[in-house]
Amino acid sequence: MTDYRNLRVALLGAGSVGSQTARLLLEHADELASRVGARLELAGVAVRNLSATRDVQLPAELYTTDAEALIESSDIVVELMGGIEPARTYIIQALTSGADVITANKALLAEHGTELFALADRVGAQLYYEASVAAAIPILRPLRDSLAGDRINRVMGIVNGSTNYILDRMDRYGDSAEDAAQTALELGFLEADPTLDVEGFDAAQKVTILASLAFHTRVPVSAVYREGITGVTLDQIRAAKNAGYVIKLLAIAERLTDPETGADAISARVYPALISREHPLASVYEGKNAVFVEAEAAGSLMFYGAGAGGVETASAVMGDLVSAARRHVAGGPGLAQNAHADLPLLPVGAINTRYHITLRVADEPGVLARVASVLATHGVSVENVLQTVPDAADADGTATLVIGTHTAREAALAATVKELAVIGVVRAVSSVLRVEGI
Amino acid sequence: MTDYRNLRVALLGAGSVGSQTARLLLEHADELASRVGARLELAGVAVRNLSATRDVQLPAELYTTDAEALIESSDIVVELMGGIEPARTYIIQALTSGADVITANKALLAEHGTELFALADRVGAQLYYEASVAAAIPILRPLRDSLAGDRINRVMGIVNGSTNYILDRMDRYGDSAEDAAQTALELGFLEADPTLDVEGFDAAQKVTILASLAFHTRVPVSAVYREGITGVTLDQIRAAKNAGYVIKLLAIAERLTDPETGADAISARVYPALISREHPLASVYEGKNAVFVEAEAAGSLMFYGAGAGGVETASAVMGDLVSAARRHVAGGPGLAQNAHADLPLLPVGAINTRYHITLRVADEPGVLARVASVLATHGVSVENVLQTVPDAADADGTATLVIGTHTAREAALAATVKELAVIGVVRAVSSVLRVEGI
Repeated sequence: MTDYRNLRVALLGAGSVGSQTARLLLEHADELASRVGARLELAGVAVRNLSATRDVQLPAELYTTDAEALIESSDIVVELMGGIEPARTYIIQALTSGADVITANKALLAEHGTELFALADRVGAQLYYEASVAAAIPILRPLRDSLAGDRINRVMGIVNGSTNYILDRMDRYGDSAEDAAQTALELGFLEADPTLDVEGFDAAQKVTILASLAFHTRVPVSAVYREGITGVTLDQIRAAKNAGYVIKLLAIAERLTDPETGADAISARVYPALISREHPLASVYEGKNAVFVEAEAAGSLMFYGAGAGGVETASAVMGDLVSAARRHVAGGPGLAQNAHADLPLLPVGAINTRYHITLRVADEPGVLARVASVLATHGVSVENVLQTVPDAADADGTATLVIGTHTAREAALAATVKELAVIGVVRAVSSVLRVEGI
Repeated sequence: MTDYRNLRVALLGAGSVGSQTARLLLEHADELASRVGARLELAGVAVRNLSATRDVQLPAELYTTDAEALIESSDIVVELMGGIEPARTYIIQALTSGADVITANKALLAEHGTELFALADRVGAQLYYEASVAAAIPILRPLRDSLAGDRINRVMGIVNGSTNYILDRMDRYGDSAEDAAQTALELGFLEADPTLDVEGFDAAQKVTILASLAFHTRVPVSAVYREGITGVTLDQIRAAKNAGYVIKLLAIAERLTDPETGADAISARVYPALISREHPLASVYEGKNAVFVEAEAAGSLMFYGAGAGGVETASAVMGDLVSAARRHVAGGPGLAQNAHADLPLLPVGAINTRYHITLRVADEPGVLARVASVLATHGVSVENVLQTVPDAADADGTATLVIGTHTAREAALAATVKELAVIGVVRAVSSVLRVEGI
């Protein structure tokens, strides 16, 4: 079964994912050898500081600060350091020396993926990255392999556990945004600097990776339309709940028709949106992740699981490691990205979506007619309207008007809201949220 | 991009899956060529009757009744005829002639998988079968590849859409079992002979395939413990709903410890069971399928989507077709089963589970103590008890006692129920259901 020579595996980084990967490699060595047809030998673990405390106890002689020497003598290099440098330089060294590389580094792939995949292609090495999106959930390989004969139309994911945790606390427990963020921080769901999470940068990095696999088109992270959750209020969440919706931070990559050329194009965007409570994504609680995929033939699919965590992410790394090792033993195609389609990326104004618009309006006759005429001017049709009569809380004599629109071009919806904000009868635009998942 | 020679694809069968596969092959020919690096040429479609009406119009010259000649001249053979013969003979011919084979035929794999995988192995051909379980949902490839470096402990699936549709109608709409089955039949969810579905045979075939991939162990379908849904009553479903549960037909493959040897063993079983409404499987409605996977490192994962349908199943067939074609172009490992672990299969009595037992008891002092002593004798501990006082409906003076047990060995639970049935204070055992998903 294991006539093939041992395969030397280098680990770069011994944080929580690196430590758990090392543990799984050592503990399951015999079973892995049966599955691969060769033994996976942990050649070493490159760290910055030999005396740091680790999550998992490994034999001291495995640690080294000489990453270059370790890479040079390995068949497969697993980069779990995070950050751009020196991770990028080490991956380039590894690929150039002919090693296959596994990484969970979404930031690096989002910034330098094009360069790294091109290099891997040129030297005939492979770059695997299942752990970079939604941690433990097998999503990249199904997109690339299982749906390879289908045509994907939309990928819509809850791919950031921290923001899902915060929104879920607000929705299910009525926590304020501040309390929810504090709980998330205490439970380790949120980094000390939460900007990457709450402003949607992390989700934007992941959507570039999903878009590249679903649509065979590279999307620079700077081109992803992005709104975070900092503007989401408890009032919005409560109103959504009453209307049968839940607010989720969605990372969406979608196939569209380019209105100029009539040809296929794509959109990549991140924003908080309403989805129906009946939608499978609505039941993704706490820090869990899920990716909902719509394909022409397969219909709707969902992939659900842990989107973070050391050992959970290590599971995805190990899957890639077995794939890379099998390729050493048996040859064959790897997980290279393929950007043959190279579809144009449309701005967010070109997408089709629905809006829920909440207005504070003067409580006088003719207000609804005035508001409706603004929508009509922009070609936006109304699906439903809810007007509340002023009550004791409305001492200023204003009423609340909630308008749900039919699907329309985002640009028309945005222009509608802009005009509504300045007409006389509207005192304030309290909330504008998109509706997804229809 | 497509320097490689054309690959000839034979389709056996032109039913709903076959017709849709042919359509996708022809409509997406250019895109498939880009993805594979070779053109996939539909060499022909073998049918029994040239003049039958088809779902999809194909050029008449593609149809042939000479399956043998078509197979002989093809690189990849896609068997979508169903049934055991002549499908088995054709697959043997195809593999023997060196062609890779794709099949959606779960019945054939459950009965003759061992023989067919051994043949494929011997001749160096590949047998792909993603479409055989849960149709469009990518589940076999993630189990084999993505989780290859992890250790799967349990696979628990809703893998039969017809029975899920019936149970869901009963649960969400209060339909009787007969009405729900009638609706399922009218909507095409149920075959004219529903035995394979409602008695759990279809799910049992699928659990053998899941078990073989999750545990690297072949399980004969005859060894799967199986209960269908014909005994599930609306009363049980209502009582489950009141207690926060839903009843689903679950196909379970699980890693256990063999009590005799202390070594790993597995269980494969199909039965209706209670699961908590908070469990992700509880939100799998209508004819949808989902497979919930628990792995040591990855934690809990769920794969959700369409479990039937011509075009949905064709999506999975196409994914296999692209994999097979890429292997022709680039070489490398295929999807062969690997039964290296060869774990023993334990009888259902050896599993650990929980019971919900509903009894009609005499309404007199000391009943609970008598019942509790029976449980204690068998080492079964009680998690909760609900005793209802007799009301107008209980004209016979009996009360209802619902006992939820803690986890115990199935054999002990079964013995407990057997003894409860014959003690004096128990008038009848109204319902016994297992609880899963904890």
